[in-house]
Amino acid sequence: MASSDFTKAEYDDRLSRTRNAMSQQGIETLIVTDPSNMAWLTGYDGWSFYVPQAVILHSSGSPLWWGRTQDKPGAAQTSWLDPSNLFDWPEEHVQHPVHHPYDSLVTLLRERDWTSGLGVEMDNYYYSAASHRVLETAFGRDVIEDATGLVNWQRAVKSDTELALMRKAGQLSAHMHATLRTGFREGRPKHELVAEVQAAGVAGLPGLAGDYPAIAPIAPSGLEASASHITWNDRPLTKGEATYFEISGCYHRYHCPISRTLFLGSPPEDIRRAEGAVLRAIEDTFAAARPGVTCEEVAACVYESFAKAGYTKGNRTGYPIGLSYPPDWGERTMSLRPGDTSRIEENMTFHLMPGLWTPEWGLAITESFVITPEGGKPLADIPREIFVIDA
Amino acid sequence: MASSDFTKAEYDDRLSRTRNAMSQQGIETLIVTDPSNMAWLTGYDGWSFYVPQAVILHSSGSPLWWGRTQDKPGAAQTSWLDPSNLFDWPEEHVQHPVHHPYDSLVTLLRERDWTSGLGVEMDNYYYSAASHRVLETAFGRDVIEDATGLVNWQRAVKSDTELALMRKAGQLSAHMHATLRTGFREGRPKHELVAEVQAAGVAGLPGLAGDYPAIAPIAPSGLEASASHITWNDRPLTKGEATYFEISGCYHRYHCPISRTLFLGSPPEDIRRAEGAVLRAIEDTFAAARPGVTCEEVAACVYESFAKAGYTKGNRTGYPIGLSYPPDWGERTMSLRPGDTSRIEENMTFHLMPGLWTPEWGLAITESFVITPEGGKPLADIPREIFVIDA
Repeated sequence: MASSDFTKAEYDDRLSRTRNAMSQQGIETLIVTDPSNMAWLTGYDGWSFYVPQAVILHSSGSPLWWGRTQDKPGAAQTSWLDPSNLFDWPEEHVQHPVHHPYDSLVTLLRERDWTSGLGVEMDNYYYSAASHRVLETAFGRDVIEDATGLVNWQRAVKSDTELALMRKAGQLSAHMHATLRTGFREGRPKHELVAEVQAAGVAGLPGLAGDYPAIAPIAPSGLEASASHITWNDRPLTKGEATYFEISGCYHRYHCPISRTLFLGSPPEDIRRAEGAVLRAIEDTFAAARPGVTCEEVAACVYESFAKAGYTKGNRTGYPIGLSYPPDWGERTMSLRPGDTSRIEENMTFHLMPGLWTPEWGLAITESFVITPEGGKPLADIPREIFVIDA
Repeated sequence: MASSDFTKAEYDDRLSRTRNAMSQQGIETLIVTDPSNMAWLTGYDGWSFYVPQAVILHSSGSPLWWGRTQDKPGAAQTSWLDPSNLFDWPEEHVQHPVHHPYDSLVTLLRERDWTSGLGVEMDNYYYSAASHRVLETAFGRDVIEDATGLVNWQRAVKSDTELALMRKAGQLSAHMHATLRTGFREGRPKHELVAEVQAAGVAGLPGLAGDYPAIAPIAPSGLEASASHITWNDRPLTKGEATYFEISGCYHRYHCPISRTLFLGSPPEDIRRAEGAVLRAIEDTFAAARPGVTCEEVAACVYESFAKAGYTKGNRTGYPIGLSYPPDWGERTMSLRPGDTSRIEENMTFHLMPGLWTPEWGLAITESFVITPEGGKPLADIPREIFVIDA
């Protein structure tokens, strides 16, 4: 990603929306540690999230970037922030048994007198319990609010520029799936196919270079596919087995995840029945997914289609997507499932996952889509049916 | 990775070493959330770390795996644990605004009466401040010990089987660097080269299939390389620029990271001088890195070599490596830097990073190596010099 993908006006709008949400929650200073949120607010991009870093957003003034000394040049290169707003913690405190980088954050906050009305992302990979303890010890429990998801929610409705990036990610996803269909054949060790598909996603298409997706290819076959998050191995593709690939193109950190199922031989009747339910579920969902409908109403389309086919789908059937960093390409706000009464809005984007996992096999045919007044529109164009090679 | 890579005796030894460390810290029940530690103890493998999961190790009995319902079949497939020791939290609590999966962990711990002497990995990506709050609220602050790094430290000395896996990762790293040298030429868009190098790492060599490394390729050119963690873009390789690739093969989750620098045109005198310092630093380090020496003594070889060449190297110059999951392939225990007096032992493995970053360029020539009585031995065989194409 590069901050130059977006206008100053778009960044201003993002800051202003975030500040509104902060103010509603009584937060004066937000410590943003989710790399996706950091990037969305400032454009900052780099594989530096394995050490403490944050964007600090006060109720007024420019956001600050705070991170490791070694990463400050990266912040200068990739974010739109003025160099005077980049702050670093001492390089010698990296992964140190005694010093914690958050000690330097405490100093920075004290210098600016930002010591109350603090918001932190309590439930995030990149905000550890140890980091929180440093802030609690310095400022006290009572002045720290849980702001998990605060920025994520602002990201839910995509701008036209963001949608254009997601459609480019979708072109990369389509290119990856085309490569997959071409390379899929009996006896082929799975890892060779994964290598080709991944390379297609990064080498991309003319004018369309791929970035690293936030999740590695999930590509289980046969019994393996009864588990949800198995990556790959070197076992040859085998007749009689369903394989599904859950993969995403990534363009300037934006994603468009799509799963497809492939079969060597003739798919048994139960898999075909499940496929029918999935295809119907997708169509029904797209028809229903209009602004004003709730997440659980959208999800109901999927559960009903499965019920009609005699299957019970228990898990959630979709989540919002967009800009992301490992280990998850979801936005972790809404879920398409019973009980989620969030109302969907125009230009929200979701990964619809009407997958089915049985003890014997797993079937995943999924779509990434955008909400329009006419219903859900897919962000990529890839044949949905199970890809069968029966020779 | 597959738990079948190791014997039952090796897993027993791992458990026993970990329990000794627990006992020394007064910990009766350890909640292991680092996916690398979970895999090292049980063999569990899957891209499921984006939701709460843990291996729970009590002072006696089998470890337990605890995770999302959807991932339980994956635990049954990949770990050596008996199915009766796999526990799940309700699927409907995934990324839920009200319910937290750790509520179910509290129930599990209460059922077994494991409610005191708890150890948690406070400073880990996969143990959030919110997760910690749930445990604190349930059991009180006083019964929870910080066990960050407890298991990581047990991983420091590698078994022969682990070293064999790391050398295989090293063969993959060498294959990736060979692919890089072949594909490196003026005008080539960087992302195309990254795609090839990554594909080489996964497609691997006959009998040697690659896994996903814990860090995406770091591959900055020219000024970009003054930052440390820039990944890649579609800019063509340009004459007069140094590019470095920090990449690792990954075999059954074991790593062997190696950086090399490449140059189009004739490298200027200052880069050549830095190269000389780096090459000398590596030789000096290998000669010094024998069992019984401290981390800071090893690091001193690097700082001295740079000082002789007129450069000051400020940041740490290496860290332990082995089994890992994103976002870091380091073990986060020792560091090769001043002040770290940890004594190195035979069969410890490190990534030696005598890199130099100036405001104008970055130079990285690194080696992964194992400690032997005769000194450090590289885990891969790759030409060290700057690879120059000057045509």
